[in-house]
Amino acid sequence: MRTTVGIIGGGPAGLLLARLLDNAGIDNVVLESRDRSYVEQRQRAGILEQPTVDTLRAAGAGERMDREGLVHHGIELRFGRRAHRMDFPSLTGGRGVLVYAQTEVVKDLIALRLAGGGPLLFTAEVRAVDGADTDQPVIHFRHDDQDKTLHCDYVVGCDGFHGVAREAIPATVRTSYERTYPYSWLGILAEAPPVYDELVYAHSERGFALASVRSSSVSRLYLQVPCDTDLADWPDERIWDELDARFALDEDPGWKLERGQVTSKAVLPMRSHVTEPMRYGRVFLAGDAAHIVPPTGAKGLNLAAADVTVLARALIRQRDTGSTQLLDAYSDTCLRRVWRAEHFSHLMTTTLHTDPAHSPFDTRLQLSQLARFASSPHAAADLADNYTGLPLPQ
Amino acid sequence: MRTTVGIIGGGPAGLLLARLLDNAGIDNVVLESRDRSYVEQRQRAGILEQPTVDTLRAAGAGERMDREGLVHHGIELRFGRRAHRMDFPSLTGGRGVLVYAQTEVVKDLIALRLAGGGPLLFTAEVRAVDGADTDQPVIHFRHDDQDKTLHCDYVVGCDGFHGVAREAIPATVRTSYERTYPYSWLGILAEAPPVYDELVYAHSERGFALASVRSSSVSRLYLQVPCDTDLADWPDERIWDELDARFALDEDPGWKLERGQVTSKAVLPMRSHVTEPMRYGRVFLAGDAAHIVPPTGAKGLNLAAADVTVLARALIRQRDTGSTQLLDAYSDTCLRRVWRAEHFSHLMTTTLHTDPAHSPFDTRLQLSQLARFASSPHAAADLADNYTGLPLPQ
Repeated sequence: MRTTVGIIGGGPAGLLLARLLDNAGIDNVVLESRDRSYVEQRQRAGILEQPTVDTLRAAGAGERMDREGLVHHGIELRFGRRAHRMDFPSLTGGRGVLVYAQTEVVKDLIALRLAGGGPLLFTAEVRAVDGADTDQPVIHFRHDDQDKTLHCDYVVGCDGFHGVAREAIPATVRTSYERTYPYSWLGILAEAPPVYDELVYAHSERGFALASVRSSSVSRLYLQVPCDTDLADWPDERIWDELDARFALDEDPGWKLERGQVTSKAVLPMRSHVTEPMRYGRVFLAGDAAHIVPPTGAKGLNLAAADVTVLARALIRQRDTGSTQLLDAYSDTCLRRVWRAEHFSHLMTTTLHTDPAHSPFDTRLQLSQLARFASSPHAAADLADNYTGLPLPQ
Repeated sequence: MRTTVGIIGGGPAGLLLARLLDNAGIDNVVLESRDRSYVEQRQRAGILEQPTVDTLRAAGAGERMDREGLVHHGIELRFGRRAHRMDFPSLTGGRGVLVYAQTEVVKDLIALRLAGGGPLLFTAEVRAVDGADTDQPVIHFRHDDQDKTLHCDYVVGCDGFHGVAREAIPATVRTSYERTYPYSWLGILAEAPPVYDELVYAHSERGFALASVRSSSVSRLYLQVPCDTDLADWPDERIWDELDARFALDEDPGWKLERGQVTSKAVLPMRSHVTEPMRYGRVFLAGDAAHIVPPTGAKGLNLAAADVTVLARALIRQRDTGSTQLLDAYSDTCLRRVWRAEHFSHLMTTTLHTDPAHSPFDTRLQLSQLARFASSPHAAADLADNYTGLPLPQ
C-alpha cells in the first residue's frame, strides 16, 4: 500500500486532517486502532473555540455542529461562595465558544470520510514508523490479522499520548516536558437538564467542580478527586451531594442541582505534556501525540484542530509550489501557540483546584487571582482571549 | 506620657502617618528603636507608585521628591536574550512611577517632623503593647536608659516584620500566611551612571537580575543568589561579570555594563507574609508589621503608604464625627489591596527567578507568561496596572 499522507489515529486530529487533505485532493490513509463504535462513543471535551469552529465550517464539516451546537457567550467563575460571570463578547470583541461534544465532531468527520470513499481503516494497529529521515517513511501496522505496510510521502502521528508515532523521532533529538497534578477529575454524564446556561467553574474549600453541558437534556459534571480514587467509593448520591456542596452560593442557600440518571462515570487523570520538536524528517506529530493539557482550560481538542490546520496548509503549499518552508516551520509555528495554551491550562488548573500541598498562603493567592479575573477588565479580557481561542498562526 | 496616637516605628509608614496626623492636628508620638543616622541610611525600595506620590505630595512632603525624583514611563522585561519594553502611560491611561529612594522619603519626613516640633524619639525601644482591647492601650518602651510608658487612645504598629506590635494581637485571633523563596537577592549600590533609562527585569538561565536606579550617578543592581550566599564569595568583579551575563542580549553581543565603585553590598532574603487581622481593638498594624512582599514587584513601601493613608483618614473621621466605621473597616479595606499586591509580587517573583526545584516544564511556563506580557495588550495592561499602583480604596 502507498499514499501521500499516512495518518495514524482516527480521533479528531487525524479525521480533521484527512478531511482537509481530501478537500485539497491530497491522497491520504487513516489508520485507527479501535473500532468505529468505540471511537464514536469515547467521551472527551465539549468546547470548541472560535478558530476550531471556523476550521470545521470551512472544511464542510460544520453542518450538524451549526444546527445542534450551543453558542456560549461566557462562563461563570464561582469562588468564596459567590458567582462572577465573564462576558466573552464584550471582552473579546464578539467572540464566544460553541458547546458541541468531541464525540459528535468525530461522528460527523467519520460519516463524511466514509461517504467520500477515502480509506479509513478501523482496528488497524500501528506497530512502528520507520524511515522518518528518508523520502519514503513507512508505517507498519496489523489489520485483518495480517501485518501490513503503508509507504508514505509524509506520516502524521495523531495517535495520542500513548501512541507510537512519537517514537519515530529519535530519543536523542526529542525533549519531553511534563507535569502531573496531585488530583484527578471524576466526570459523569447525567440525563439531567443543565442547571446553568453556561459552564460554571467552582473553586471551593472542598475542591474544584465544573458544571458543563452536552445538550439541552444531558449534563456533564466534574468533581476534583484524589488521584487514587476508586469509583466504588462514589455512588451517585455522594456525587450529587458533593456537587451541591461545591457549587453552593451564599445568596441562594437552599439551592440544589437537578438530579438525573448517571449514564457514565469515570476518573480522568490530569497531566501537562509537550514533546519537542513536533516534526522530524517526514514525520509530524499533531494533537495529543505531541501535547497534553489538563482539561480545565478546554484546550485539548482545540490545539489538535489548530495543529492539523497548520499542517494541512503546509502540505498543500508543498504540493502546489514544491516549497517545504511551511512544513519546515510547522513545529515552531505550532509550539508557540501550544505553550500559550499550556500556560493558560496550567493557570486555570492551579488557580481553581485545591492542592494537598498548598498552604493557606497559596489558597489566598488563588482567591486573589480569581478576584482579579472578576474585577479587572484587563485580567478578564486576557482570560477571555485565551478561553475563546487565540487566532491561528497565519 | 500620653498621646492620641502612639506610633511604633519611624520608618516610612510611621513617619508618613505622623505627618498625615500632624496635618490634621491629631496629637501623636513616634517611637523609633534605631538612631537617626541608621534610619536615614537604611537601603530599601526606590519605586513610588502613583498613589504614593499623590499621598506624599498632598501631605506636603513631596517638594524634594518632585525636584529630584525620576519619572519612569515603563520598564523593560528581558528574557530569551531579547528585550521587551512595557510602556506604562499607554497601557494605564497616563500613569507612571517615580524613582525616589525610600531613604530619601524617610529623610524628608524626619526633617518635616523635627521642624514641626512633634515628638519623634530615636533609640526608643518598645518592649510591649498592653491593653489593645481597652480604651487606653499602653506602649512600654525604654529610652534614655529608662523604662517609660506611653498612654494612647490608639496604637499603630509600624515596626516592621520583626516588631513587637503584632504581639499585641492575641495569638488566638491572629493568622499568619507565609511563603519563603529558595533564593535571595545580592544587592549593590554602585557609583556608576545607570546604563538604562528604565528598570530592567531580566529572566535568564543563570538567574534573575534587576538593573535599577538611585540617581543620575548611582545605580542599584541586584542578582538572584542562593539563600546561603556568603558575600565573601562575591568580589566586585564577579558581580559585574554575572550582571553582564544575565543582561546579555543577542542583538548586542559585545555589550557590557559600565562599572563603578561598589559602595554597598548585601544579601536580601525574599519572603511573603500577611498577618490578619491588621487591627485588634485599638491596636492597628501598618506596612511591614502586617505584610511583607518579595521586592520584585516594588510594592513594599507603597503598601505601607496605602495602609497609613487609609488609617489616617479613618482616625480623622473618628475625631471629626465620633464614628468608628472606617476604623472598624480598616483591616478588611487594606487586606483586599494587600492580597492583590501579594499575588502580583509572587507572580513577578516566580515568573522571573530560576528555582532549583523547577523542571524544564516550569521554565517553559515562565517564558510563556513573559511572552504573553510582551505580546498581549490585556496581559501587559494588567501588569502595568499593578506595577504603577492600583487606586487607593475610597
